Amino acid sequence: MLKLYQICGKNRDAGFSPYAWRVKLCLLHKGLDFEEEPIRFLEKEKIAHVQPQTIPVLDDGNKSIVDSFAIADYLETVYPEPSLFGGATARAQAPILNHWVNATMVMGMFPLLALDIFNCLDVPDQIYFRKTREIRLGMSLEEAMATRGNKLAGFQKSLAPLRAGLKEAPFLSGAAPAWLDYAVFGSFMWARTVSDFKFLAEDDPLYAWRERMLDLFGSAARAAPVAYG
Amino acid sequence: MLKLYQICGKNRDAGFSPYAWRVKLCLLHKGLDFEEEPIRFLEKEKIAHVQPQTIPVLDDGNKSIVDSFAIADYLETVYPEPSLFGGATARAQAPILNHWVNATMVMGMFPLLALDIFNCLDVPDQIYFRKTREIRLGMSLEEAMATRGNKLAGFQKSLAPLRAGLKEAPFLSGAAPAWLDYAVFGSFMWARTVSDFKFLAEDDPLYAWRERMLDLFGSAARAAPVAYG
Repeated sequence: MLKLYQICGKNRDAGFSPYAWRVKLCLLHKGLDFEEEPIRFLEKEKIAHVQPQTIPVLDDGNKSIVDSFAIADYLETVYPEPSLFGGATARAQAPILNHWVNATMVMGMFPLLALDIFNCLDVPDQIYFRKTREIRLGMSLEEAMATRGNKLAGFQKSLAPLRAGLKEAPFLSGAAPAWLDYAVFGSFMWARTVSDFKFLAEDDPLYAWRERMLDLFGSAARAAPVAYG
Repeated sequence: MLKLYQICGKNRDAGFSPYAWRVKLCLLHKGLDFEEEPIRFLEKEKIAHVQPQTIPVLDDGNKSIVDSFAIADYLETVYPEPSLFGGATARAQAPILNHWVNATMVMGMFPLLALDIFNCLDVPDQIYFRKTREIRLGMSLEEAMATRGNKLAGFQKSLAPLRAGLKEAPFLSGAAPAWLDYAVFGSFMWARTVSDFKFLAEDDPLYAWRERMLDLFGSAARAAPVAYG
C-alpha cells in the first residue's frame, strides 16, 4: 500500500498542503490506492526515516520519496499508465512550470493565507508557525491578513499565463487534465481547505476550470473536509 | 516558397525581432526553406495583405499567418514532422509558456535594449520608435539605458524557472530542442543582434544552453549578421 505523509492542523482529516494535494491528484490520476498519514508541524518524528525531513513524503513499500515533483516523477516511471506528464517533451518542461507554480502561486498565496493557516492549527503548532512564518513574511500574520485585499489583484494578474492556456482547451494540459493541472489546482485546494477567502472572480476562466477540477475523480477534492471553522 | 516578413533596421540583412527569430528557428527545425522579407517600422505597406498589421508574418502560398505563436501552430499542423511541440500535452501547455516568455523575457529585456535598438534604425524609424517607445517605457530611451545595470539582476533572477528545466537535460525541452527552446532563444537573439550587452554570466546554466542553441542548424544563429556597430 502507498502511504502519503501530509501536513495537517487540529483536524487530522483535513490535510491542507498545496504540495500534498498535488500528490493526491497524481495518485488519483494513476488510479492508485493510498493511505494518508497526517502530521502536525511538531510531529516530524513520523518522517524520521527520510532526509530531508520535509513533507509530503510518499512511501511505496520500502522506498520513500520526498518532494511533490520527485513523487510525480517517481509515479510516472514506476506506474507509467495513464501518463501524468503526457510525453517526453512535456515531462522535460515540467520542472520549468513547477518552478513557476511554486514561485508564483504558493509564494504568492502564502501571505494571504498565513493567518487562516494559523487558525487551523493546534496551540503548539501555532507557536511554531507564528515564530517561523513571521520571519519569512517580514510582518505579523495579522498584518499580512490586513493587507491581503490589496494583494489580490496582483496575484490574480500573475495567473495570466494560465488563462492563455485555457483559451483553446478545458484543461491546462489540453482535452484532459494532467500533471500541470494538478500542480496548479493543489494551491487552490490549499486555500479551500484553510480559508473561505475568494481568490478568483466568478468570470475568471480559471474559476470554471477549478470547478472542472473539483468534479474530477468522483468529486474527490470537492468532498474533502476543510480544516477551518 | 515560404516567406517571412520581419522587422529590420538600417541593415536590412540583420532582422532582430525576438518573435521573428522564434519563427526562423521553427522553420529550421522543420527543415523548411524560406525567404526573408525585411521591413522597417515605417514600411508597413509591405504587409498590407494581413490584419492585424504586425510582424512577423509568414506567407505560405496564398495563406498568410500573423503572430509567432500562430505561425508555430500552423507549421506544426501543416508540416507535422519533425514535431515542434513534442506531443499534444506539450502543445496544449505551450500558450502558457509563450505568455510567460513574452511577459518575462521580451518585456523584461526591452528597457535594457531600447536605446540599442534605436541606434540600429534609420532616421525616420528612429523618430517613430522614440515617440512610441518612450511612452511605453515611461522614460526616455537614455534613462532606460542609464539604469539597465540595476535591472540586470532582477531580469536574471526572473529566469529561475528555466534553470530548473536545465538541471536534468541539455535543452529546455529535454534531450533535443523544441518550440520552447526557440521561444526563449528568440529573445537572446534579439539582444545579440542589436547589442553587445551581457545578459547572462558565463557560469549561468543558461549561458551554456545558449551556446548549444547557437550551434544548431550549422550555427545558423551564430552566423547571423548583427545590426549594430
